[in-house]
Amino acid sequence: MKATPARLHTESADFEAAFRERLHWSAETDAAIEQRVADILADVQARGDAAVLEYTQRFDGLQADSVAALELSQAELKAAFEALPAAQREALEAAARRVRKYHEAQKKASGESWSYRDEDGTLLGQKVTPLDRVGIYVPGGKAAYPSSVLMNAIPAHVAGVQDIVMVVPTPRGEKNPLVLAAAYVAGVGRAFTLGGAQAVAALAYGTATVPKVDKITGPGNAYVASAKKRVFGTVGIDMIAGPSEILVLADGTTPPDWVAMDLFSQAEHDELAQSILLCPDAAYIDAVQAAIDRLLPEMPRAEIIAKSLTGRGALILTKDMEEACAISNRIAPEHLEVSSRDPHRWEPLLRHAGAIFLGAYTSESLGDYCAGPNHVLPTSGTARFSSPLGVYDFQKRSSLIEVSEQGAQALGRIASVLAHGEGLQAHARAAEMRLK
Amino acid sequence: MKATPARLHTESADFEAAFRERLHWSAETDAAIEQRVADILADVQARGDAAVLEYTQRFDGLQADSVAALELSQAELKAAFEALPAAQREALEAAARRVRKYHEAQKKASGESWSYRDEDGTLLGQKVTPLDRVGIYVPGGKAAYPSSVLMNAIPAHVAGVQDIVMVVPTPRGEKNPLVLAAAYVAGVGRAFTLGGAQAVAALAYGTATVPKVDKITGPGNAYVASAKKRVFGTVGIDMIAGPSEILVLADGTTPPDWVAMDLFSQAEHDELAQSILLCPDAAYIDAVQAAIDRLLPEMPRAEIIAKSLTGRGALILTKDMEEACAISNRIAPEHLEVSSRDPHRWEPLLRHAGAIFLGAYTSESLGDYCAGPNHVLPTSGTARFSSPLGVYDFQKRSSLIEVSEQGAQALGRIASVLAHGEGLQAHARAAEMRLK
Repeated sequence: MKATPARLHTESADFEAAFRERLHWSAETDAAIEQRVADILADVQARGDAAVLEYTQRFDGLQADSVAALELSQAELKAAFEALPAAQREALEAAARRVRKYHEAQKKASGESWSYRDEDGTLLGQKVTPLDRVGIYVPGGKAAYPSSVLMNAIPAHVAGVQDIVMVVPTPRGEKNPLVLAAAYVAGVGRAFTLGGAQAVAALAYGTATVPKVDKITGPGNAYVASAKKRVFGTVGIDMIAGPSEILVLADGTTPPDWVAMDLFSQAEHDELAQSILLCPDAAYIDAVQAAIDRLLPEMPRAEIIAKSLTGRGALILTKDMEEACAISNRIAPEHLEVSSRDPHRWEPLLRHAGAIFLGAYTSESLGDYCAGPNHVLPTSGTARFSSPLGVYDFQKRSSLIEVSEQGAQALGRIASVLAHGEGLQAHARAAEMRLK
Repeated sequence: MKATPARLHTESADFEAAFRERLHWSAETDAAIEQRVADILADVQARGDAAVLEYTQRFDGLQADSVAALELSQAELKAAFEALPAAQREALEAAARRVRKYHEAQKKASGESWSYRDEDGTLLGQKVTPLDRVGIYVPGGKAAYPSSVLMNAIPAHVAGVQDIVMVVPTPRGEKNPLVLAAAYVAGVGRAFTLGGAQAVAALAYGTATVPKVDKITGPGNAYVASAKKRVFGTVGIDMIAGPSEILVLADGTTPPDWVAMDLFSQAEHDELAQSILLCPDAAYIDAVQAAIDRLLPEMPRAEIIAKSLTGRGALILTKDMEEACAISNRIAPEHLEVSSRDPHRWEPLLRHAGAIFLGAYTSESLGDYCAGPNHVLPTSGTARFSSPLGVYDFQKRSSLIEVSEQGAQALGRIASVLAHGEGLQAHARAAEMRLK
């Protein structure tokens, strides 16, 4: 088995075309999935629990008499945690502690209420409050990630959300003990073994058993993504996640094995995952390819890695590090490793990325699990306009305005002129009535 | 003509049903609109400028040889500003100044980069950067609001967005001079007389003439809303706006005429707009209804006001102010006036609202135009999970992580345990390789 990422060179005549072709990935869902999801949502909205039960039986092969029977008790979550080997228990708790600390800093830096009074005594500001209730979608089956439970539930908890409701599909009833344990550690309040579009519908509209939430976060397959997009507006959603990506910007000073393994760590997620290396040193790129060839046979997930790297990976030779930074900005990667002796020289040039990992010791996998920042990050170039999941996703803001009698005199005259200009006379009169 | 909002009483047996019926509004677009919008988007994506020109001719009755001919020059925007009466020029500039000042305070309070180092030297933080290019949709025709230009463009400008591209439909070529002038005042970089789903498509995908943007904000009709929802993921969007709403929480101390006019100011937007009064004083509610009856005939937009108040308005008698606050939280109104002698007593009880206007002098219309906070606010109960448009909508965050060699020892062990637990061996190996 061979893993052969595309070799591109920015100075080749065909670079632009080859680069675009490699980067191409479309977030559009197909029409058939869209229609089936629309039907499921409408059905759950109309028939509630009964519909949820039917779809769970049909898609997950899971039979139950009631949705209540699919709820996991706190005792069950706790038991799952206590049954883990000590090393896993300690690792989960250590990761949770670091993730919590980071998100507490985030809340302090950007999530507190503020206000000021201007010279005429008018108070202006914003009140920041937590959402009341959120739903967390946790994928089941082959991609069941306990770390995702921590990364979704902890920022909600830090934001002050009172009710955190988790859904996780358990095909044929197979529960993942680490997922249950992570829910316990992260402070999930209620948990149901539900998945797919039917779980999204239950959270968005509420049923007799599943409480209606204000926002749904967490990754899922194409059905889940389509359902989230469709209920957006009825509830909030985080983002529509595409395949995971890593971009390594290397100056050639990091051991090539480390970089090869970092590329693997993205590629092993699934065949559509994308791993890209940008480097101005051709000999170093050869060394990374040699490390790939040498290390691949050792990997249990070698087949997925080979398909991902060969189908979507790229090793790109650039003129210099500046050009590498510019190309990175075009890609706006989810994960961006600056594998350089001097990462702070390049960081200011990097404008679009979900997370930036600085220096050779900062492997993406440390960030995935336990460095502290969130691992739910914008994919497929959406880092151009969106941000890591954070405390701010579980808060909302209300503007505060208190105009003094004196302030109403100045503001009322301005508002009156503009309201008349827009042909909105009641707006104008409301302002004029407050004039002395 | 009569405007007769529903009279509800929380202690009536039928209150709950009547209240739910009055509140009901669905954000779902109909399937026919969805399909037409999907077709327009696909066509603009495939044929670019040619498709945009055709739809503009068909829907706006506006003929042009090229999309370039539909671009408004900076000189034209400036000329529109300079041709305004002095009072309008000054009011626009005064409003822009106040809106800018507020959003600068907002940026300072919650939009700056931050970082810290933990005890083992690991750096953690977030870098906050502006979006590169945003598109602002400004409705044309009967609801052409220059104030919306200020409210969308100024926060983008304060965030540091380099390219602000405005689209505004000009049916049959009719341009609104105040809208053009507002674009000049607010620092809009490029402007096109385009509207509808075709304008959204042009901004989301880019054409030969219209630059592709990273995010689209601004209100529009059902076609625009459906198009924005559909391109979400390719670009960012702000929110899907429903009909505008006001909720007045009154303790009976504000002149009833003021409250009546504030209810009118929402109702005059359109027939679906919603105006609600919550008050524990039955005599005061009667006085507001009397003021409505007396003031309505004076209003140029009396017909729209009457239809809106009669069809969707409500005057609700509550047991006390505490109950009024609880009902307000259920509604999560876009605009919430606390028309009370003691607004700071009630404000802490109010958890969900787009903007909170404190005290009798703070009419919503002052906030709509010039108090400073944004007038683009979450509607239809979405204040439960979303926020006013703000500087944060034009910024994105990138996590920063720099793990020291020492930090990699502790973190690597945790990551390795969790990665093995998830069956992701390359993740584990990447962490283990950094161990001494």
